[in-house]
Amino acid sequence: MSSSFGTIFRVTTFGESHCYGVGAVVDGCPPRLALTEEDIQPQLSRRRPGQTAIATPRKEEDQVAILSGTENGVTLGTPIGLLVKNKDQRPGDYKDMSQVPRPSHADFTYQMKYGVRASSGGGRSSARETIGRVAAGAIAEKFLREAYGVDIVAWVNAVGSLQARDLTNETLTREIVDRTSVRCPDETVAGEMEERILAARDSGDSMGGVLTCVCRNLPAGWGEPVFDKVEAKLAQAMMSLPATKGFEIGSGFDGTLMKGSEHNDAFVRKGDGLGTVTNFSGGIQGGITNGEPIVFRVAFKPPATISKQQDTVDFEGRAVQLEAAGRHDPCVVNRAVPIVESMAALVLADFALRQRARTAN
Amino acid sequence: MSSSFGTIFRVTTFGESHCYGVGAVVDGCPPRLALTEEDIQPQLSRRRPGQTAIATPRKEEDQVAILSGTENGVTLGTPIGLLVKNKDQRPGDYKDMSQVPRPSHADFTYQMKYGVRASSGGGRSSARETIGRVAAGAIAEKFLREAYGVDIVAWVNAVGSLQARDLTNETLTREIVDRTSVRCPDETVAGEMEERILAARDSGDSMGGVLTCVCRNLPAGWGEPVFDKVEAKLAQAMMSLPATKGFEIGSGFDGTLMKGSEHNDAFVRKGDGLGTVTNFSGGIQGGITNGEPIVFRVAFKPPATISKQQDTVDFEGRAVQLEAAGRHDPCVVNRAVPIVESMAALVLADFALRQRARTAN
Amino acid sequence: MSSSFGTIFRVTTFGESHCYGVGAVVDGCPPRLALTEEDIQPQLSRRRPGQTAIATPRKEEDQVAILSGTENGVTLGTPIGLLVKNKDQRPGDYKDMSQVPRPSHADFTYQMKYGVRASSGGGRSSARETIGRVAAGAIAEKFLREAYGVDIVAWVNAVGSLQARDLTNETLTREIVDRTSVRCPDETVAGEMEERILAARDSGDSMGGVLTCVCRNLPAGWGEPVFDKVEAKLAQAMMSLPATKGFEIGSGFDGTLMKGSEHNDAFVRKGDGLGTVTNFSGGIQGGITNGEPIVFRVAFKPPATISKQQDTVDFEGRAVQLEAAGRHDPCVVNRAVPIVESMAALVLADFALRQRARTAN
Amino acid sequence: MSSSFGTIFRVTTFGESHCYGVGAVVDGCPPRLALTEEDIQPQLSRRRPGQTAIATPRKEEDQVAILSGTENGVTLGTPIGLLVKNKDQRPGDYKDMSQVPRPSHADFTYQMKYGVRASSGGGRSSARETIGRVAAGAIAEKFLREAYGVDIVAWVNAVGSLQARDLTNETLTREIVDRTSVRCPDETVAGEMEERILAARDSGDSMGGVLTCVCRNLPAGWGEPVFDKVEAKLAQAMMSLPATKGFEIGSGFDGTLMKGSEHNDAFVRKGDGLGTVTNFSGGIQGGITNGEPIVFRVAFKPPATISKQQDTVDFEGRAVQLEAAGRHDPCVVNRAVPIVESMAALVLADFALRQRARTAN
Repeated sequence: MSSSFGTIFRVTTFGESHCYGVGAVVDGCPPRLALTEEDIQPQLSRRRPGQTAIATPRKEEDQVAILSGTENGVTLGTPIGLLVKNKDQRPGDYKDMSQVPRPSHADFTYQMKYGVRASSGGGRSSARETIGRVAAGAIAEKFLREAYGVDIVAWVNAVGSLQARDLTNETLTREIVDRTSVRCPDETVAGEMEERILAARDSGDSMGGVLTCVCRNLPAGWGEPVFDKVEAKLAQAMMSLPATKGFEIGSGFDGTLMKGSEHNDAFVRKGDGLGTVTNFSGGIQGGITNGEPIVFRVAFKPPATISKQQDTVDFEGRAVQLEAAGRHDPCVVNRAVPIVESMAALVLADFALRQRARTAN
Repeated sequence: MSSSFGTIFRVTTFGESHCYGVGAVVDGCPPRLALTEEDIQPQLSRRRPGQTAIATPRKEEDQVAILSGTENGVTLGTPIGLLVKNKDQRPGDYKDMSQVPRPSHADFTYQMKYGVRASSGGGRSSARETIGRVAAGAIAEKFLREAYGVDIVAWVNAVGSLQARDLTNETLTREIVDRTSVRCPDETVAGEMEERILAARDSGDSMGGVLTCVCRNLPAGWGEPVFDKVEAKLAQAMMSLPATKGFEIGSGFDGTLMKGSEHNDAFVRKGDGLGTVTNFSGGIQGGITNGEPIVFRVAFKPPATISKQQDTVDFEGRAVQLEAAGRHDPCVVNRAVPIVESMAALVLADFALRQRARTAN
Repeated sequence: MSSSFGTIFRVTTFGESHCYGVGAVVDGCPPRLALTEEDIQPQLSRRRPGQTAIATPRKEEDQVAILSGTENGVTLGTPIGLLVKNKDQRPGDYKDMSQVPRPSHADFTYQMKYGVRASSGGGRSSARETIGRVAAGAIAEKFLREAYGVDIVAWVNAVGSLQARDLTNETLTREIVDRTSVRCPDETVAGEMEERILAARDSGDSMGGVLTCVCRNLPAGWGEPVFDKVEAKLAQAMMSLPATKGFEIGSGFDGTLMKGSEHNDAFVRKGDGLGTVTNFSGGIQGGITNGEPIVFRVAFKPPATISKQQDTVDFEGRAVQLEAAGRHDPCVVNRAVPIVESMAALVLADFALRQRARTAN
Repeated sequence: MSSSFGTIFRVTTFGESHCYGVGAVVDGCPPRLALTEEDIQPQLSRRRPGQTAIATPRKEEDQVAILSGTENGVTLGTPIGLLVKNKDQRPGDYKDMSQVPRPSHADFTYQMKYGVRASSGGGRSSARETIGRVAAGAIAEKFLREAYGVDIVAWVNAVGSLQARDLTNETLTREIVDRTSVRCPDETVAGEMEERILAARDSGDSMGGVLTCVCRNLPAGWGEPVFDKVEAKLAQAMMSLPATKGFEIGSGFDGTLMKGSEHNDAFVRKGDGLGTVTNFSGGIQGGITNGEPIVFRVAFKPPATISKQQDTVDFEGRAVQLEAAGRHDPCVVNRAVPIVESMAALVLADFALRQRARTAN
């Protein structure tokens, strides 16, 4: 079950970096949702490498095909098969099966776990695996938007020590986010970020960063205590992405510096119901949405693939010096933006359906 | 399924703060594991309130009874029922069903989700729910220790802005951790932490903090890519605990400040196999254990229950001033130590069995 | 997960025949359902041994206690803990751990599977395990009745070669079913069945039989193709009961003798919608309810516990003669009636909630 | 989750009869299993229509492609994507969306459940959906054969009232089964069956039948009490197939005619361990394999698609006369043989891995 996620709205992904293709099966999507490839492609294209100066110039087309589950542009309620072909399929050559596990990659652990591993490109641990997630997430997102008006926007908040300033989560849109190549809506800092990333690239190195994601227009009542609290499933979703090292909801680690009297979100009347004055809870209390925006942050480490020479050992423990060939992304946070949004959508669509099961008749 | 956790080693918890009792059913525990209540009680006792000056003086006995699944002190491979009676069962009085949702508690969201809620004490969102987790976790931990020698130790790393210094994760034990009431092994800082907490209590306020947890002696190869990566399930487990706001693995958010060349964990020969020189990965690469210790951190917000007066509104939106009666923990991080350890054990025991399914014959 | 059943409305059972108690945790029951022990006890009492001449005279009280999940007689939407204490708890005496696996019992297979087994009474394979199912099923049934008017009635259709005649499924009620000790609504045949069973008992032998179950007032649209078709989950549910050897839906095995032109259920207008003229489909088409009554049958083999002497071997393969001590049910079909009803209710309640998730808003 | 089956060895199918293609994702298959399309194609070819006189002359190629999860002819332990393209893809024409629900098809129930349905060919309820199951089952079967020597053979035991005689389950092979077009190893009866089926076809009608399946060389100890007993999951698996109406294990419904003293399977020494003299249990006791062959039977109703004229009503309840166009299988039992074998393999492979999780180290 490790390649499946969700209870009712459930995605199963498949594919390695150099097999026939990568994709997903989405089971449990409600019927009668208008859906064609055009609804899915935009997020895949935002995820695609080779879009900007700071990304690798490899060209990947990443055109999605819907294999099943729709007819006449409408979902049937049956499983939706999604496929993106790999351009770069391996020639089945055993010889380039490297004897050196790359530091902080998954070569070593896959070999220890499975006793075998894909011979090139990261296989299943490659970032290409996220294509299936993004394709499925685009469907989840369309459902959430149409059924509830839910709106999900992520952006780059930090690259290395450079941090965006003075952002108001309430009004950011994807259009604003996409104005800069690093997808940081603070345009001044975005320029510095790009310079810093290019400098890292030129020195054969890589950089990490932090994404923020906000989910708006959520009804109160989503989330399933106790193990499937909203923040718990968001955390699983985000920490299941390649290269993530941390997750925060609402006040996060900084919240530990506050007193309870400062941190508590007092209630206040909002419209017909209640809202909160502050939102240190990040839109979730007791694991359940309270109607305020969900705000979370995800830490991405610097990519492990660098062209700087590294001292390490091969599988037999013999000292070697490793130098990555080819060109690689010196920073992935901008491409991670649609991936984080997609995972958030998958989490929330499942909660929406689980709550429907409880309340409707 | 929201009250169940795990795929093979699977716990289902039940119970609110003021019903007959709280407990758990552990399904999938391997047979022939020596197990009696004595194996479970110590962690429950460490979790119990009223142990130290900084905790609430309420007395709760929290004696666990094994209802099923063992005979003659040995597990049968059948589901293990666990029950801890509540001392303080509600008299079924509807009148104290408060009309004021407490800020940053789950009163509001439970009401919105279920259209009903337990009339006192937090119900299912109460910290008493973690009793079932701790009891189940003690079983998981015993299995891991006996079958693999796995060793799990958590401690308080920060209370508010006070941080422990110069700790070497490798040698910390529970005995060392328990030497101070705050369960911070840096005894100097621990004293300051206690003072700070008592001061918060005296001012009717509360404090948050950060726990670190280390899991040692893990074999390489545990963890289930892609959605059930070790860090993903640990994150879910920790963020499903009451009052948690953040999770970090290995280098965490600070890792985003490093370059790839600094962050990569070079391999080196260790014993018969490979280890890494540094451990910024936190013992996990590609979602799979690499044999190095797993190190993670969890942020706990300041408890929402404070005796300071709060301005908020009732369910109808009318302004009220709220003042908590009774006495409450001004800081929960010390009691969270066995809870975090238990959840880590539940995560790892499940991964151990899932990997067995793959490799054995 | 083998002790859990259901996706949204989910029961987890625990308990062996001679431990502290048997019970269940019901997760996912909708909130605000009126529920007390009085709603659960009647079906447990119908399941209890010692009620009639044809059953064992052992007395078991089987009083259920709700441990959690309700307050003021209403479900909270949280897990409902259910416990029935065992009267006959083992003294922890290892000596009566028999060296002879009883023929057609689970002694041998439990020993082979787990390397250990409960030392008396069947342990987890005992029919006492069904107590948790019946208690949970009574909750499912109450939900189905109140939310949809669903009505579930099972009865004994055959004992050995004796078959009930001329029953009209449409009008049978539990009251009618309970008029005879064998729970066969054909009173003439019921008398012969009782005689036949008593004769088998007197000769130290046992008898099997067939139950029919009808579920009425179901809406069209329940059931989850493809693996969780209604008949598939009913079959799993029934074949998971002790002593069952066969399951049929609608026309069943006899349906294979018909031509398609005879077997097809032509549609006809019924009320505001469509119904079918015949019901060889048993209320299900394509795995989904069509609004007609679900009708299925379950075969129960003769109980393996008999007092006649049996030639068999012990665990070491040495020939022995086995003679069961004590008194045992010579036929279990009458007591299986509430068990079959309960499992049907568990299946249908889960489908009801899964369909809600799809259609509501 | 309704399109997924299995806990560890887990298949998810997708595809309707007239979309781009049908297929499956197999998650949890052990790594390092030799696997290419050649291992999968034979069972798909046995399932394919148009092979014999008694089947529809439609030609479907049904060539499988492995999309992911293998490299150099070996499984990687990652999800295996499987795709079979549909030759007959719909032109997206809405007009042939019939207003008449075909009797005993799923048109009506899919429309009631989803509010939409595939406009031709049965969509997801079509027998083409079983292609994904058969492809996945071929992988499960290869694993079982290589790791344990498990051998699974199904055959046609009855067509209408014609029954095979004097078959000895022990020695039947697929080669023997495939000697006759109806896949009944009793060659005399097979000839009569074929005549009977052709006569039904000529009169525009269809026939049902019964399959028997035997699974040999199983170790004792597979199966997961209580809800996932071997017979329970086999029953779910078989009753999830299109057109099945009944399932029996071991003695089945006939077992209800026996006395306990006749039905009990006495133990006897076999080789190093124990076996049973008789096998009325069908290889399973207490839901767990005992090492004897599993023997079960499945009832298939006559196909609902017939060319005889039928009196029925349209969706609005208006009387219509329906006559199926095109040519269709007058009997599906011979093509069901590899489907039943495949589902049995999926059930058993999952149990094998679940038991590994319990016993290995």
